[in-house]
Amino acid sequence: MNPELGRYHARLRNLARSCLDIKEKHNGAQDGMYVLTTESGTYYQTFCDMTTAGGGWTLVASVHENNINGKCSLGDRWSSQQGNDRNLPEGDETWANTVTFGSAEASTSDDYKNPGYYDISAKDVSVWHVPNKEQLKSWTSSAVLRYHTESQFLKEHGGNLYHLFKKYPVKFGAGQCKSDMGPSSPVVYDTGDKDGPSVGKSSFVTFRVFNADQAAMAMCSGHKPTECNSQHYCIGGGGFFPDPQQCGDFTSQEQAFKALTQSSVLLFYR
Amino acid sequence: MNPELGRYHARLRNLARSCLDIKEKHNGAQDGMYVLTTESGTYYQTFCDMTTAGGGWTLVASVHENNINGKCSLGDRWSSQQGNDRNLPEGDETWANTVTFGSAEASTSDDYKNPGYYDISAKDVSVWHVPNKEQLKSWTSSAVLRYHTESQFLKEHGGNLYHLFKKYPVKFGAGQCKSDMGPSSPVVYDTGDKDGPSVGKSSFVTFRVFNADQAAMAMCSGHKPTECNSQHYCIGGGGFFPDPQQCGDFTSQEQAFKALTQSSVLLFYR
Amino acid sequence: MNPELGRYHARLRNLARSCLDIKEKHNGAQDGMYVLTTESGTYYQTFCDMTTAGGGWTLVASVHENNINGKCSLGDRWSSQQGNDRNLPEGDETWANTVTFGSAEASTSDDYKNPGYYDISAKDVSVWHVPNKEQLKSWTSSAVLRYHTESQFLKEHGGNLYHLFKKYPVKFGAGQCKSDMGPSSPVVYDTGDKDGPSVGKSSFVTFRVFNADQAAMAMCSGHKPTECNSQHYCIGGGGFFPDPQQCGDFTSQEQAFKALTQSSVLLFYR
Repeated sequence: MNPELGRYHARLRNLARSCLDIKEKHNGAQDGMYVLTTESGTYYQTFCDMTTAGGGWTLVASVHENNINGKCSLGDRWSSQQGNDRNLPEGDETWANTVTFGSAEASTSDDYKNPGYYDISAKDVSVWHVPNKEQLKSWTSSAVLRYHTESQFLKEHGGNLYHLFKKYPVKFGAGQCKSDMGPSSPVVYDTGDKDGPSVGKSSFVTFRVFNADQAAMAMCSGHKPTECNSQHYCIGGGGFFPDPQQCGDFTSQEQAFKALTQSSVLLFYR
Repeated sequence: MNPELGRYHARLRNLARSCLDIKEKHNGAQDGMYVLTTESGTYYQTFCDMTTAGGGWTLVASVHENNINGKCSLGDRWSSQQGNDRNLPEGDETWANTVTFGSAEASTSDDYKNPGYYDISAKDVSVWHVPNKEQLKSWTSSAVLRYHTESQFLKEHGGNLYHLFKKYPVKFGAGQCKSDMGPSSPVVYDTGDKDGPSVGKSSFVTFRVFNADQAAMAMCSGHKPTECNSQHYCIGGGGFFPDPQQCGDFTSQEQAFKALTQSSVLLFYR
Repeated sequence: MNPELGRYHARLRNLARSCLDIKEKHNGAQDGMYVLTTESGTYYQTFCDMTTAGGGWTLVASVHENNINGKCSLGDRWSSQQGNDRNLPEGDETWANTVTFGSAEASTSDDYKNPGYYDISAKDVSVWHVPNKEQLKSWTSSAVLRYHTESQFLKEHGGNLYHLFKKYPVKFGAGQCKSDMGPSSPVVYDTGDKDGPSVGKSSFVTFRVFNADQAAMAMCSGHKPTECNSQHYCIGGGGFFPDPQQCGDFTSQEQAFKALTQSSVLLFYR
């Protein structure tokens, strides 16, 4: 291999920590796959969006529903794979741990989470709803909804979703509908808009909400819930839902728009 | 790390897309592990067979039966891990998606699929049946059956099995026995032969067949089915088998030869 | 990428096989993440402890209990994920195969096993019990128990746990309590001690034991069992326990100390 790696002190040095680092040093950097590193020196590959609103967005995760009839079963990594279980109110705890899985190229065909999810220090999120199975080169053109925040809301919550969800656990019974809603931020639409596939009762993204049953959900894409039926438009969750039909990465089969139900939710940081 | 990766524009450049690319540039290249890249720039490691019939074969996948009594349960990634389910006629869809798993070195102890499976543009396949748990250095000597095609049949089907199975879905009820058989190619034996462990009613490899129950199977190693009991010698499948005993990566416990049942099926492209 | 990798013969050369190799060549090497390679040329990243007792320890695995109520269910990779099953006396066979999973950085939040587990030729083991979810930079300070062997016992058993467990299968019914205990070695404590969280009936680590029911367990941390109730302080196991409550990576909910039950067991070689 190269002279450095070829020697016996093969530590990876000086890799970027995020796509934003790369974009800031090389303004001409293009969309594509890059190698990044964590603070501890774990390197990994992911996709950088170097275009949207100035670029510098790092793909850190995707939520993919592999079986809408599976209720907290295999593949429901963003809620629970252990079955709907009152003894596991936090389920698999994926939103707030360092476990990683999947690959960037398969992030529309399977769940994905890379070390950037917990390592990058970011200010904003960008969210793409891309139809399942689309290949990387078609993501931008095929996305049914794309939006990002500009409020820098992550700065107040530890710099990423890992820290945000440590503060606001996705845990059954840890709070009430309305009174214990987690952070929310207004969004700017890049593809689709509030009157389009996003329902758009309001143009927000909101994290960690509870429904009327005290079931916890992780993320309401394009919404700031005003009612207590968040299971119809939020995703991810804890490991227990009093209505077992809701347990799963996509909590409802009757999400607002079918195009969204059959899409994967890709999460970027900047 | 190296000067390029050490800078902040750490994109991987100029890696080979396949073992054949390497062999064509370096005729003396030996069997072993190599780093390859996809068109999008995802790099990965796999084993190259640089010997058989001129070499240039890339290991892209393996089918391993972890529990012959598990019926479409955990570990049955090439059929379904969700249980035998009429609502999931395509099961986990592994034959036709970009999800990857496992490692080359463990491909006789677990299922394996790397990005080459969907990325490489190939003409032929090579198939090795290697006893479970054999270590990489013993694969060639311990294989109970090895054969390859020379018909270049993949050229007509998109250049790899990913595209072939998009055209011929491994899906319960999508066709009938005999009338809807997928592509078939004659094979050349490298280890074993048609009178040996391969049963050898005919010397073919056939993809996507249906049995009398309309259950779909992905690959019939060494065979072109003439009867409708393909579950006895084909592997992989959709997510529903009317006879639930057949659901799994290895559809039958009574496969023609025990040595094959206790082997992993390694798939190579060239 | 670099000149070498950028060419079409991208094989990784001259990487170290273990953290000890690195330490011996570079005495000043620090704790952290390094790139290693197997004999076959598979490279991987892991954590090196370059400090304890002279350093040179390679992290090769961790055993993490994701759900103490799950009985040989999803996540129980070090026993069985297939349910308590008399037909699977060896369970997933993780202790004696080459399957790998997880990542070093997530080894306190999920099971971990890298190629070093089966590839490195070692003499001794070091074991850290680190509270679940602790981040890598806090492992040393937060560990509730750390110890290592100095007896070089692995030399007699093939140089690593992979070979040791090939010789002493973690298999229900393969032996009897007391008479068929596997290898044992005295230990030296680095954090905690025999009167501390280690219970310390004796200061040993013992591999492959059976309880009164002939159920097999893989590793008894800090112990040399003298009774036949090893399920109370041993971890890992085969795929069948006559008392189904014991089936799982952590065999008992009533392990001696709660601090240990809520910790992950990190395994190092030197």
